[in-house]
Amino acid sequence: MRPFSIHITFLILFPLIAMTALAAPQPADLIITRAHIVTMNAAREVIEDGAIIIRDSRIVAIGSSSIAANYSAAKTIDARGDLVFPGLINTHTHASMTVFRGLGDDVPDRLRRFIFPLEKNLIDRELVYWGALHGFVEMIEGGVTTAVDMYYFEDEVARAAKLVGIRGVLGQSILNFPTPDSPVPYGGLAYAKKFAADWANDPLITPALAPHAPYSLDAEHLRLVAKASAELNLPILMHVAEMTDEISTLRREHNQTPVEYLDSLGLLTPRLVAAHCIFVTDSDIALLKARDVGIAHNMVANIKSAKGVAPGLKMHDDGLRIGLGTDGPMSGNTLDLIGQLGYVAKLHKLDRKDRNVMPALKVVEMATLGGARALHREKDLGSLEPGKLADLIILDHNSTALVPLYDVYSTLVYAASPRDVRTTVIHGRVVMEDRKILTLNPQEVREKMRSIARRINTAIAAGIR
Amino acid sequence: MRPFSIHITFLILFPLIAMTALAAPQPADLIITRAHIVTMNAAREVIEDGAIIIRDSRIVAIGSSSIAANYSAAKTIDARGDLVFPGLINTHTHASMTVFRGLGDDVPDRLRRFIFPLEKNLIDRELVYWGALHGFVEMIEGGVTTAVDMYYFEDEVARAAKLVGIRGVLGQSILNFPTPDSPVPYGGLAYAKKFAADWANDPLITPALAPHAPYSLDAEHLRLVAKASAELNLPILMHVAEMTDEISTLRREHNQTPVEYLDSLGLLTPRLVAAHCIFVTDSDIALLKARDVGIAHNMVANIKSAKGVAPGLKMHDDGLRIGLGTDGPMSGNTLDLIGQLGYVAKLHKLDRKDRNVMPALKVVEMATLGGARALHREKDLGSLEPGKLADLIILDHNSTALVPLYDVYSTLVYAASPRDVRTTVIHGRVVMEDRKILTLNPQEVREKMRSIARRINTAIAAGIR
Repeated sequence: MRPFSIHITFLILFPLIAMTALAAPQPADLIITRAHIVTMNAAREVIEDGAIIIRDSRIVAIGSSSIAANYSAAKTIDARGDLVFPGLINTHTHASMTVFRGLGDDVPDRLRRFIFPLEKNLIDRELVYWGALHGFVEMIEGGVTTAVDMYYFEDEVARAAKLVGIRGVLGQSILNFPTPDSPVPYGGLAYAKKFAADWANDPLITPALAPHAPYSLDAEHLRLVAKASAELNLPILMHVAEMTDEISTLRREHNQTPVEYLDSLGLLTPRLVAAHCIFVTDSDIALLKARDVGIAHNMVANIKSAKGVAPGLKMHDDGLRIGLGTDGPMSGNTLDLIGQLGYVAKLHKLDRKDRNVMPALKVVEMATLGGARALHREKDLGSLEPGKLADLIILDHNSTALVPLYDVYSTLVYAASPRDVRTTVIHGRVVMEDRKILTLNPQEVREKMRSIARRINTAIAAGIR
Repeated sequence: MRPFSIHITFLILFPLIAMTALAAPQPADLIITRAHIVTMNAAREVIEDGAIIIRDSRIVAIGSSSIAANYSAAKTIDARGDLVFPGLINTHTHASMTVFRGLGDDVPDRLRRFIFPLEKNLIDRELVYWGALHGFVEMIEGGVTTAVDMYYFEDEVARAAKLVGIRGVLGQSILNFPTPDSPVPYGGLAYAKKFAADWANDPLITPALAPHAPYSLDAEHLRLVAKASAELNLPILMHVAEMTDEISTLRREHNQTPVEYLDSLGLLTPRLVAAHCIFVTDSDIALLKARDVGIAHNMVANIKSAKGVAPGLKMHDDGLRIGLGTDGPMSGNTLDLIGQLGYVAKLHKLDRKDRNVMPALKVVEMATLGGARALHREKDLGSLEPGKLADLIILDHNSTALVPLYDVYSTLVYAASPRDVRTTVIHGRVVMEDRKILTLNPQEVREKMRSIARRINTAIAAGIR
């Protein structure tokens, strides 16, 4: 019996040993378990008790919590039933303008009476840097993992984004007239090119060109921007069809809509992210789609300024690449994208006089995959799937307004607050955990903001205009 | 020299002794110091470093922080620069409907297809009680100190309000058809009278009659409600001019608007709080003013259902008694009045195509004094002044979106979140401190909500309609 019994033992043990070898935990950097995961993958799968495995800034696996046993990582987050969504993408903002938040609200013609004079006289590197830090803290606290920003001294914004750990598509402003960072007229493009060169190939920061608007650069200047974008493969961020006088001026001077005008200058390409697009015609929308342009839909800022409801629903349903944006905090006052979701859902219902349009799922699509598509980054961003970059947020499922939970999309859109985000992961790195920002001391940033605000108040009292 | 010097000493010492006696600390129950106080008094005074002294449920003094030295209290809250506002007044809600929050969003005719069948089949005392508890927790966490509620088994709502410590004007529903609490047709009025008798003279709870709407009670039934209100001096809470078919039915059957119809039946009195008033004419508005009726303006619920923007701005500017409401959590999804403020400010701007209308101060007025006036309780509620009831909230001035602070009203309306409320005081009692509810364990309430939600899901799966 011995030889036989040895043989049996070998037959039994060999596969066990082999299986053990196969099952040796694979290395990972971060494991999230016991999460209620809203994947936003093609099947819109929701995993009630799930795990996400992250290595080298990317998701390597996602499934039921049991898969966690196959991996070992330096850090594991037990989500205990909390909700995990893809990180939200803020497709249009001016983070540094947090320093002006709440200044001169509810007064006419703020842009020319307040914003431009304040910017002209007060903006410097310090203001831009600290304002951006504060804005990025607010975004991370509110579940935004990618910020598409345009401002002056955008290299300072990049420095701030890098420090706090947020993903950024950051556009250096380009205008005809002199600006705080480019005192010579037409100086912005050179500044932008240098900025783009300095920040080329950064894993987190994508430098971009930000020609302010069709009316604030002349045609030749806009052509130069288009040329630089093509040559250097840089995204273009721009305010488009936002102002009624923009429409009337271009109609009078060129007999064109802003969209037609920009197309005639070569600006409409897949590299463009056009913010607002409030006053666009059906043929403008068709043209934007044909040129594969990205759209940033900024509901709160657009209605606070009484401009109107942009046709974001039609653009989404027509298949355009459209995401959501907060605009700057002097327009929408917060950098809260979760709050935007409710506005987007409700304003389109009101606009169409139909409570069934713009359902919650569609709004979440715009805030995640839609934003990724607007940036032509849908291979990397916008959903939780193996191979994609690990940008995700964890929401407190015990927050009062999130109880009970019948539908994850409805809950995020109609009930959640930005303050319900507990933990934010960007590029595989935990930048906020249990409401604590891990990359810097936000109280220090707040104190700096108060000191800058005192300087601004002093300047206003002295009659700056 | 001696006599003279003694005389001098006496002259100096006597007043000092007298002053010391005068300055002996006066007793108080609660002192709040170092607060940035937004009083909403007639002068709209804001005290940057202030104190509030509370005794026996009322404010006895308010001024600079130095006045605190004149009082001694068992409890002192050092606000350390946090913002203090009058407690917000939610003039229209159905707190118990938290159990249905997020059910069947974005589908047509929810009221008849979902809400009525679910209510008919599932509502019992337990659901109403726990749903109300959960809703009141959410309101207290979000800075609401007075809730104007209407539902079934309103005695259970009163029990919940009393336990959690929120001020309530609580209306027992009255309809023609049988309801969960009154299986006999026309049973609601008798239930309501008993409820009112049981809760008479409660310092926190004001019982009320809640005839559902002009279309769900017949004329004779409405006349009986008006009579009971007059005889028993009970407030009436009612949905008015909310539905397009309400308008068309009353036009067809009585050739009247809902407001005219209710006036013909004796319902329009200072005791009425009319919710919604979306479809009101200018002459309806004049009639509502002449009858001194209170109005509950529910922006989020009205636009989520695509009904429209009620003329709340005109009603406010015409001097009507108008406050803000969240409506129930199956309509607006949250019981968050701070979130409503931003919607009210922005939607009226959009509606009027004028970014200057409905400024932040006016919105805060509606949420505080306006709500108090709608209830004819402005002598007791709505502002922080000596003699008024001590209903107040403390907001975290270090919350990222509240920094920097240029204007307290703009900050509350455009930037704050309900989660920024740290501490809530109602009737002089601290019911939440540093985000911790002190009157019950909210986690126990959440677990109960989840268990009720499982019961509801089971019933829906079984085909309840």
